Amino acid sequence: MNQKNWTIGVDLGGTKVEAAAVDASGSILKKIRRPTAVAGGPEAVAREIVEMVSDLQGAGPGQALRGVGVGVAGQIEATTGVVRFAPNLKWRDVPFREQLGQILKLPVALTNDVRAATWGEWLHGAGQGCDDLICLFVGTGIGGGVVSGGRMLSGCSNTAGELGHTTVALDGPVCTCGRRGCLEALAGGWAIARQARNAIQADPAGGRGILQAAAELKQRSATPEDVTAQAVARAAQSGDPLAGRLVEEAARALVAGCASLVNAFNPCRLILGGGVIEGLPELVERIARGVAQEGLQAATESLQVLPARLHGEAGVIGAAALARLTVSGEP
Amino acid sequence: MNQKNWTIGVDLGGTKVEAAAVDASGSILKKIRRPTAVAGGPEAVAREIVEMVSDLQGAGPGQALRGVGVGVAGQIEATTGVVRFAPNLKWRDVPFREQLGQILKLPVALTNDVRAATWGEWLHGAGQGCDDLICLFVGTGIGGGVVSGGRMLSGCSNTAGELGHTTVALDGPVCTCGRRGCLEALAGGWAIARQARNAIQADPAGGRGILQAAAELKQRSATPEDVTAQAVARAAQSGDPLAGRLVEEAARALVAGCASLVNAFNPCRLILGGGVIEGLPELVERIARGVAQEGLQAATESLQVLPARLHGEAGVIGAAALARLTVSGEP
Repeated sequence: MNQKNWTIGVDLGGTKVEAAAVDASGSILKKIRRPTAVAGGPEAVAREIVEMVSDLQGAGPGQALRGVGVGVAGQIEATTGVVRFAPNLKWRDVPFREQLGQILKLPVALTNDVRAATWGEWLHGAGQGCDDLICLFVGTGIGGGVVSGGRMLSGCSNTAGELGHTTVALDGPVCTCGRRGCLEALAGGWAIARQARNAIQADPAGGRGILQAAAELKQRSATPEDVTAQAVARAAQSGDPLAGRLVEEAARALVAGCASLVNAFNPCRLILGGGVIEGLPELVERIARGVAQEGLQAATESLQVLPARLHGEAGVIGAAALARLTVSGEP
Repeated sequence: MNQKNWTIGVDLGGTKVEAAAVDASGSILKKIRRPTAVAGGPEAVAREIVEMVSDLQGAGPGQALRGVGVGVAGQIEATTGVVRFAPNLKWRDVPFREQLGQILKLPVALTNDVRAATWGEWLHGAGQGCDDLICLFVGTGIGGGVVSGGRMLSGCSNTAGELGHTTVALDGPVCTCGRRGCLEALAGGWAIARQARNAIQADPAGGRGILQAAAELKQRSATPEDVTAQAVARAAQSGDPLAGRLVEEAARALVAGCASLVNAFNPCRLILGGGVIEGLPELVERIARGVAQEGLQAATESLQVLPARLHGEAGVIGAAALARLTVSGEP
């Protein structure tokens, strides 16, 4: 293990903060977690991160900590490190990189949480050694990151990679973004759960298998409101026909969306992660076959479709890697 | 005008070859055109281009010609300059860059024709000075090019930018690529013509206006088989209700497709060109409004939607610019 140049990566979400000491090979030396001090505003969250950094200092291998990287679920201004908007934290225009840097007296790198996870998979996960890749994270929502020609794409206002909000069904179901038929509105975790609840209400007998799976997860009796994508996945895996149909609908949307992304970006690797993929790992193979069939031959002949490797740790590992790169003058 | 470093740009299609002497400011000094010698195979086409280059030598400003750039409607291998596949020329695996370079004894740059047009718009058209842009060319087919962070994206096998083959309607009409509901299958020129022919066959009375427009273009009486996207555009512009509906359907698909591309790539400029856009220039404003409404705010707040500026000359100007860059060691 290369323990020089160790850094700390922070994954800052609306409910929890995770922070890890990570060495230059992407290995986690120690990881800690806390509930996010949302109510206290940016100052409280900054203090919380400072305490966590201090906790992790001991985990480092003797050498001084080089820097801290933070992935935030929100829109970040690249040059200033201002959090433009982070709905889960209820922040608007918070100069968080500066605030945190002043207290820590260390270099701080700030990026979007999904971008951080893409950095993680690229440098230390399923994307290692690859110059052209897409990471698509299918969780409650769907987001991603794109590396092209050896560089992470950031776009005009640093929001490149909103891959969940690509229309795959013009007249499809309404998305949280207001449009119809976004990939996320067909295959995101919240959308799978919504489709399941609607189907159960329309046909309570057919929905029994999914409700039972929801009850097993909750360890109590379940109503349609308790149904999650995880319950649908569980029911599908035990052969429930309705759950199987719902998963197949989501898979069909994912194939169309992934083939579109592959045609547009022409990556060497398409890396699939997030809760929905982890709950239904067979989707990776299903999407690989579908994209090979539906994508343009020129775009798919050199494509590999792979599962993400870092799972829940991609965010902290990626944020730490970004801090390391920032300290050494890249990217 | 900067007439030093002049180069020649060639737009090589299945029916015609255009070649132009272009100075370093992107101005055309002289342009010529010939039917493509497809029947003679790559050798005949290479000889044809050599003759055209020789014709254009006199147009140059005294300084020696620096190089020749060629845009080919096909898939090009970036490192070798081999034309992998060019259906309109009936070529497979033709080492055309090498063949042409050996006869010309000059540096030759080879790229895809749509990529060449994107180079043209970026360096000398509506994209000047911009580091993050998408060019979407809506002609008979739909293709595009993407510049991100000041670099032209090429992808893993040099086919990035197949923006017409992104699904916008999962169960939509069949596309030439075999999938359903690609943007091109809803808004490409061939697709608009197909929709019109189907609509006229279903309702001959309602189709009279479009048939009349087709007859005016053909200067003889017209049958549904004579209907083109141009005829639909012409009828729409004189207020024909069916043509208006067909254009609106295409516009709706273009808005969805463009909003998706803007969300995914986050460009500063979306540049719209090609025959369908030139025939219906009001589409630019329609798409701009639609994307502002449907795209994510973070991705659209800094976006400009603009018409392409170089029209039919983007290909030769871009190919010439690429030759100039290649000679000077970029890109």
